[in-house]
Amino acid sequence: MLPGMAFEFKAVRRVEFSETDMAGIVHFANFFRYMETAEHGFFRELGYSVVMDQFDPPLGWPRVHAECDYRQPLRFEDEVEIHLLVSGKKSKSLSYIFKFNKLTGSGPYREREEVARGSLTVVCVAKQSDGKMAAVHIPKPFADKIDVAPAAML
Amino acid sequence: MLPGMAFEFKAVRRVEFSETDMAGIVHFANFFRYMETAEHGFFRELGYSVVMDQFDPPLGWPRVHAECDYRQPLRFEDEVEIHLLVSGKKSKSLSYIFKFNKLTGSGPYREREEVARGSLTVVCVAKQSDGKMAAVHIPKPFADKIDVAPAAML
Amino acid sequence: MLPGMAFEFKAVRRVEFSETDMAGIVHFANFFRYMETAEHGFFRELGYSVVMDQFDPPLGWPRVHAECDYRQPLRFEDEVEIHLLVSGKKSKSLSYIFKFNKLTGSGPYREREEVARGSLTVVCVAKQSDGKMAAVHIPKPFADKIDVAPAAML
Amino acid sequence: MLPGMAFEFKAVRRVEFSETDMAGIVHFANFFRYMETAEHGFFRELGYSVVMDQFDPPLGWPRVHAECDYRQPLRFEDEVEIHLLVSGKKSKSLSYIFKFNKLTGSGPYREREEVARGSLTVVCVAKQSDGKMAAVHIPKPFADKIDVAPAAML
Repeated sequence: MLPGMAFEFKAVRRVEFSETDMAGIVHFANFFRYMETAEHGFFRELGYSVVMDQFDPPLGWPRVHAECDYRQPLRFEDEVEIHLLVSGKKSKSLSYIFKFNKLTGSGPYREREEVARGSLTVVCVAKQSDGKMAAVHIPKPFADKIDVAPAAML
Repeated sequence: MLPGMAFEFKAVRRVEFSETDMAGIVHFANFFRYMETAEHGFFRELGYSVVMDQFDPPLGWPRVHAECDYRQPLRFEDEVEIHLLVSGKKSKSLSYIFKFNKLTGSGPYREREEVARGSLTVVCVAKQSDGKMAAVHIPKPFADKIDVAPAAML
Repeated sequence: MLPGMAFEFKAVRRVEFSETDMAGIVHFANFFRYMETAEHGFFRELGYSVVMDQFDPPLGWPRVHAECDYRQPLRFEDEVEIHLLVSGKKSKSLSYIFKFNKLTGSGPYREREEVARGSLTVVCVAKQSDGKMAAVHIPKPFADKIDVAPAAML
Repeated sequence: MLPGMAFEFKAVRRVEFSETDMAGIVHFANFFRYMETAEHGFFRELGYSVVMDQFDPPLGWPRVHAECDYRQPLRFEDEVEIHLLVSGKKSKSLSYIFKFNKLTGSGPYREREEVARGSLTVVCVAKQSDGKMAAVHIPKPFADKIDVAPAAML
């Protein structure tokens, strides 16, 4: 990996009451919101927003595939680390995997238990003159900052 | 009220699992989504969408006030009637109240129990040339279809 | 398939404003809520609720896998049919696929465009005496009502 | 105010993509989720969770009134401070107001613009032997930690 490139990002959040359902656990659809939160944090760390309106035409990143495997539930006030790893990089799309690690204990050596694992594939698109979206090349200055994570981490 | 005018609308929905929280009841913020669902049904019944892009500039309806009083909880799979009543009509804004009636029994004479009551005030806005939103007059053909509900119903 | 068995269910809903995001389309996580709505309608049609508290101990149906492929966006006020098909049936779990068909036109011969396809795998669980959830056999009267859809439909 | 008492709490969050709607701004119902996030942070700071299962019977805090006035929109990636102030304290209920301050600039002297103001009234309840919820006195050790904010701050 060249200097200045990145292949991972970690976001930490605490489960909110409104994210739980009557089963007392985080509703399964909310794991997809958590993935997106980590993705957007990754973009920000690289100096970008997922809303790329500095380009003309503006670029967006719709999702073409989303997936999640659930092992253990998350509950209200649990702290969870969402560990994004870039698993694929093509000229017009990116793929990530997300490890959901529940954090317990305190201090620098908190324990991590992987409770779920997800993935997303997103495509870089621009609005065409007919108003429709079409896949376009990821802007070079942004693509140059992104690397695929080492296979051993995925 | 003149022919063709309307001052109320009733939407019925069944509580979804994802709308509940760990207390086993509909999360209180979702009552505001339910209000909006009824409002947009009211607009559709009058032949309009809340996204008024047939006007130039397009009009939108941001909320300036929202309120709800909760008496009884709603639970998963409850059926609820959201009864919208127009409570105020000004040149640039509308106000509604919403009665949340839980439906029980079956057939034409279902029982209704009012479990919550809410209100919204919405303003008709258009994007100005500087990109900011400003309140504008409600388009006459739309305003002409809306009446304030009789005081006895509010 | 024996009489009284079912392998599919269709739910229709209209996209709500609160389900869209700033890209002007249904947020991708909401497709998972739509899948669940169809699943719960399927359960109800068979005379059951997904909250099976008529059993002792009560049974629940947590998700162990969820997936979606997105082809075209859904927008505010679009009508979408969520077509659930049972794709797998084991002693303790069920799998479904979901075809998201955007409906256009009116009358009995509305046009359908498949805009997304998803899948879920859910497990029947009961709370053990130690408070933990464990997979259990699907109750026979319920299982007897469910068949796997013909391969040609999947 | 006695030592160890508190009448306010500030939570900061960044607007997430999934919290916006097609108008490009935070959906108005989400302000109520933000209020709740601040409330629960306030509880945690006092050493409590809103899910008070250390009491027998366990206590909960359903909302009986919620309200919000919207002045300016919040947008994706805006940072917002939710400033909770205790506005009322009775034997069985608490009331708060919430000032939503959009943060701009950086460093210790960030600028604050109040974009919305809300309020909540919540009641302390316990499940009765008949399964219904009834209002109960706020536990003294918790109540003793809470004071009403000075009138000048409200």
